[in-house]
Amino acid sequence: MAQRRLVVVGGDAAGMSAASRARRLKDREQLEVVAFERGRFASYSACGIPYWTGGVVDGPGALVARTPEEHRERGVDLRMLTEVTELDLPGQRVRARDLTSGRETWHGFDDLVLATGARPVRPPLEGVDAPGVYGVQTLDDGKALLDGLERTTGRRAVVIGAGYIGVEMAEALVRRGFAVTVVERAAQPMATLDPDMGALVREAMCGMGVEVVTGTAVTGVVTGGDGRVAAVATEDGEHPADVVVLGLGVRPETTLARAAGLPLGESGGLLTDLAMRVRGQGNVWAGGDCVEVLDLVSGRTRHIALGTHANKHGQVIGTNVGGGYATFPGVVGTAVSKVCDLEIARTGLLEEQATAMGLRFVTATVESTSRAGYYPQASPMTVKMLAERRTGRLLGVQIVGREGAAKRVDVAAVALTARMTVDQMTALDLGYAPPFSPVWDPVLVAARKASASVATG
Amino acid sequence: MAQRRLVVVGGDAAGMSAASRARRLKDREQLEVVAFERGRFASYSACGIPYWTGGVVDGPGALVARTPEEHRERGVDLRMLTEVTELDLPGQRVRARDLTSGRETWHGFDDLVLATGARPVRPPLEGVDAPGVYGVQTLDDGKALLDGLERTTGRRAVVIGAGYIGVEMAEALVRRGFAVTVVERAAQPMATLDPDMGALVREAMCGMGVEVVTGTAVTGVVTGGDGRVAAVATEDGEHPADVVVLGLGVRPETTLARAAGLPLGESGGLLTDLAMRVRGQGNVWAGGDCVEVLDLVSGRTRHIALGTHANKHGQVIGTNVGGGYATFPGVVGTAVSKVCDLEIARTGLLEEQATAMGLRFVTATVESTSRAGYYPQASPMTVKMLAERRTGRLLGVQIVGREGAAKRVDVAAVALTARMTVDQMTALDLGYAPPFSPVWDPVLVAARKASASVATG
Repeated sequence: MAQRRLVVVGGDAAGMSAASRARRLKDREQLEVVAFERGRFASYSACGIPYWTGGVVDGPGALVARTPEEHRERGVDLRMLTEVTELDLPGQRVRARDLTSGRETWHGFDDLVLATGARPVRPPLEGVDAPGVYGVQTLDDGKALLDGLERTTGRRAVVIGAGYIGVEMAEALVRRGFAVTVVERAAQPMATLDPDMGALVREAMCGMGVEVVTGTAVTGVVTGGDGRVAAVATEDGEHPADVVVLGLGVRPETTLARAAGLPLGESGGLLTDLAMRVRGQGNVWAGGDCVEVLDLVSGRTRHIALGTHANKHGQVIGTNVGGGYATFPGVVGTAVSKVCDLEIARTGLLEEQATAMGLRFVTATVESTSRAGYYPQASPMTVKMLAERRTGRLLGVQIVGREGAAKRVDVAAVALTARMTVDQMTALDLGYAPPFSPVWDPVLVAARKASASVATG
Repeated sequence: MAQRRLVVVGGDAAGMSAASRARRLKDREQLEVVAFERGRFASYSACGIPYWTGGVVDGPGALVARTPEEHRERGVDLRMLTEVTELDLPGQRVRARDLTSGRETWHGFDDLVLATGARPVRPPLEGVDAPGVYGVQTLDDGKALLDGLERTTGRRAVVIGAGYIGVEMAEALVRRGFAVTVVERAAQPMATLDPDMGALVREAMCGMGVEVVTGTAVTGVVTGGDGRVAAVATEDGEHPADVVVLGLGVRPETTLARAAGLPLGESGGLLTDLAMRVRGQGNVWAGGDCVEVLDLVSGRTRHIALGTHANKHGQVIGTNVGGGYATFPGVVGTAVSKVCDLEIARTGLLEEQATAMGLRFVTATVESTSRAGYYPQASPMTVKMLAERRTGRLLGVQIVGREGAAKRVDVAAVALTARMTVDQMTALDLGYAPPFSPVWDPVLVAARKASASVATG
């Protein structure tokens, strides 16, 4: 049998998982695996950047799961600092530019994996490209930020956007001794939570000395005489800044895919089938932050940039390219995060999302504790649950609390996947012992309250 | 409408939950609620006794969720130190003895709730009733033990049985400065785990200085000249003891039910329908440690004494007695525990149980960590998963690890309830962020390995 050629575009989680998996399933006589990465790092944890910035973990080495050399030793021909600049799908080849030499070459493929990731949202504001303004998407970004923080003598930082990245970066900058202001257009931080839950996050951020400015839009980045950032301007005034971090989230990086006419969703992410094959294509696959995934709760595709999904996509693609069979059924929208000792989690739909879908629902919010009330270090947590009226089907859960709060959302994630009702959830046989849970786990307390509302509502 | 009379036998979790719930649903003109408790404590957390003994939590007050006075203020006529000595089901009445005065009276009921709990296994050994030998089932037991520990000048303790209670009591006694030996008939401690996982617990127990003697049966309790316990005799020799704690587990306390001819299962626990009504009865209900529950994985009834089940049973009974409708669908066999900083969890079937049921299965054991490997305090954990051959249905999970290990079993508990396959589990959207999980959660790593075994096995 002739050797087949797999080309992977993008050397982070999805791309390298796909490459490694396919490599394990097919030997070198059967399959050649070439991967192109335009940056200086591959197979790394972008999620670790805030902790690297904050000095909680070492970097960048520790954030790299497998070095380029290790990939090559395992038979993946990974070309670093090499950017794919064009996809020729009818010709089954890609054009790649060696960023060091500037030389361009064409590479033929039998299977193509697009794992081009995401790019941070850079608002079209004056001054947003000024020195001292940083995005945090790649390890290269993280390194640039850290270099910048070390060079800066000023100690004022402004974070634009109070989503996961913004909140985590605020904590990191506080740890590095900066006076931090977070500016957010929405009424509360963490727009991935309902506003009432986001308000709890705001409290914790203020508690660690972060100034949280919400309900105001950024209108520009003000530069000083040296051309460097000097302040962030908002509708309500200016916030002086020696450093600005963009925490506005990310968008799928699908420039190549768009140019090649591949199908994109509303967010600009690639659309795939369940095997992670680009829709309508036979041998083009896509995964990670550049795709939209099926949200099993809403039944719609969404863009969710998360390393854990990217790894799963890569695993599925690699299995399929390697001659096996695997699918990625979709997500339920789980996300966990922390700011200082506050743990934040959500899964499923927010109120706003459920309403937009035309769903009628009840909500239940309860206060409980991580351990039996009498056990040392029992810490408070707030659990909010959404359930559909009449059917009682679980729609979503949000949790804000201290130690032991965030990962409790996993119970709801599995329940959503299994399309359980909140009434069914009240009987779940969750682990109980005083050091681990009250006799009614907080998730069950919320389910009981939601179930009662469904019954009477 | 005439006032109905609810009589509850047993004033702990199941009984008082039922009483309280029924009380909330019906006002006093509609329903009289009388509860009898033979001990001096009601509505308490027996699970907290090891932590009280170890000085980790205060007791006994802190372990009492609601005092008798509080129950009475809420309209539950709770009679303490009053033992029900006979059930007259045809006559719809119970005979109760005031343990202080010795006076006996009959009390009529329209609905009867049996929540008589469990009693610690006391092996029929010579000397087992000697002073210095303690069971730990009720708060009264706990108080007797603590009094005994304070009076004892010796510092040698032997725990008979290395199940949950035995292991937890061993830690408690170490905390109180005792030299502790645990004697267990099985080959490894924690017979609620497979032996390979139990071996990990043994290591941790030895690490905290406990002598773990396994594979030997206790043959008697040796008393000294003063009649007090002096040693525990085993097939392999004697272990000197100033204090002996029985950690052999519990059996349903169903003496009254048996005398009344009510249906009992193999363990001696009462058999109920899903509404927690005793089978074949119209107005007799039972819940908590005195019943057998349906194991949803094996399809059989089992006796599992756990406060969290007792509370759920009480809630279901109270709802039904109060004119509502609720059921307890069953359990999947989840249990969590800790010994020092080692967390121990299981759900579903062990290898031995699955084999006994005639199931053919694969096992997968993986090592992973509680957080991203690069994140501080990432602690190791071992996850073992059982899945049915061909179908791939999840059969059970066991986890032994440090901080963040035990409650991960909840994911498997929900997956078992939903009858998921391990292949389905590999795609679960569990919370991921570096402080909370590696990019593949340990449960997912195990599911991947199990799924691969199912596919090839």
